Amino acid sequence: MKLYLAGPEVFLDDAREIGRRKVELCTRFGFIGLYPLDGDPLLDAAAGAASHSIFAANLALMRSADALIANLTPFRGISADPGTAFEVGFAFALGKPVAAYSNLPGELKHRAHSTIGVAGDAEAVPTLLADGLHVEDFGHFDNLMLAEALAASRLPVIQAQAPAADPFRDLTLFEQALSVLAEARSAGRLGTTPSLSHPEPAGQAHGEETFHG
Amino acid sequence: MKLYLAGPEVFLDDAREIGRRKVELCTRFGFIGLYPLDGDPLLDAAAGAASHSIFAANLALMRSADALIANLTPFRGISADPGTAFEVGFAFALGKPVAAYSNLPGELKHRAHSTIGVAGDAEAVPTLLADGLHVEDFGHFDNLMLAEALAASRLPVIQAQAPAADPFRDLTLFEQALSVLAEARSAGRLGTTPSLSHPEPAGQAHGEETFHG
Repeated sequence: MKLYLAGPEVFLDDAREIGRRKVELCTRFGFIGLYPLDGDPLLDAAAGAASHSIFAANLALMRSADALIANLTPFRGISADPGTAFEVGFAFALGKPVAAYSNLPGELKHRAHSTIGVAGDAEAVPTLLADGLHVEDFGHFDNLMLAEALAASRLPVIQAQAPAADPFRDLTLFEQALSVLAEARSAGRLGTTPSLSHPEPAGQAHGEETFHG
Repeated sequence: MKLYLAGPEVFLDDAREIGRRKVELCTRFGFIGLYPLDGDPLLDAAAGAASHSIFAANLALMRSADALIANLTPFRGISADPGTAFEVGFAFALGKPVAAYSNLPGELKHRAHSTIGVAGDAEAVPTLLADGLHVEDFGHFDNLMLAEALAASRLPVIQAQAPAADPFRDLTLFEQALSVLAEARSAGRLGTTPSLSHPEPAGQAHGEETFHG
């Protein structure tokens, strides 16, 4: 069973080493890890061709994967890396179960409050921020589209209790996510696709209603 | 022809008014605009149910749409809203053409440089930032997965020449995106799905190779 390993750690200087460790952990749980190629230094030569190749390679890896594990640790701001968010949406649309972890605890709302600040009357409208836009108030770790896609996959985000010292290299929660996926596999719940997330492609099994209210 | 209108303007205090204006502009170009429900105040009562309903409604709207226009203006950071990025990935995976605009000019790399700062030796490794992670150096306006999905749809991002005064209410570039989509429709290029982006769902037309090198 193949897992696509999405996350901004591809931007680390030692991205290939982290990828190697992630794939090794996958093996330990009986999975095949597919690590995106963004960090491949060989591709840096011709920027245009590299960008195009990385994109095509990542799409192909996602299509070949049975599920996706996303590192949704906030990246350069209060929310997840937009490339990873794109990949969660892409994989989810194809009916792949999506698991995720975040090495930062807490709600999006609280991060938004402390980073951006609340607008004028915090008592009356606690969701209106100083930038003139609201923040979601659903108790989610990040944007609801991400949180609900995970819930629909019956794999809610695994979040740190305290901020990780090295949030893009710490694989403790990645390992927990693998363990959860291994349990789901044992229970026969991994092969099925969430009913809300498939265009019923021919030849692909799809499962029962997984979107619980 | 239906267009799903993705973007963080759903978080504006006057989100419904912006939505009304967007839908009205769609009508002027002969499109039906589908505006996500995130901003619906009626749904705020029960947070859990609302989050779930918004998600399900947005997925249903995206499935029913023929294409998507995303507002990818950087939102609370140097990159696009992750909810919008999720939706771009979702729609793209279903073979919907994705158009986008950004009311902020410039490259992701330059925003990253000025916001986060370059690490030690900027001459030797200009992509390594002060946070210990690299930034992409492909000349894209944002993460390559977003930029390449637009390129594969043959609808590259429409970017502002100068920062918009009111970036989440300014619809000048949204109107330009509509105009580009209307041209693509006239040329018969909108009904086709990019060849890299479809799981070949039964009963859905798919087109020629659109991913150009």
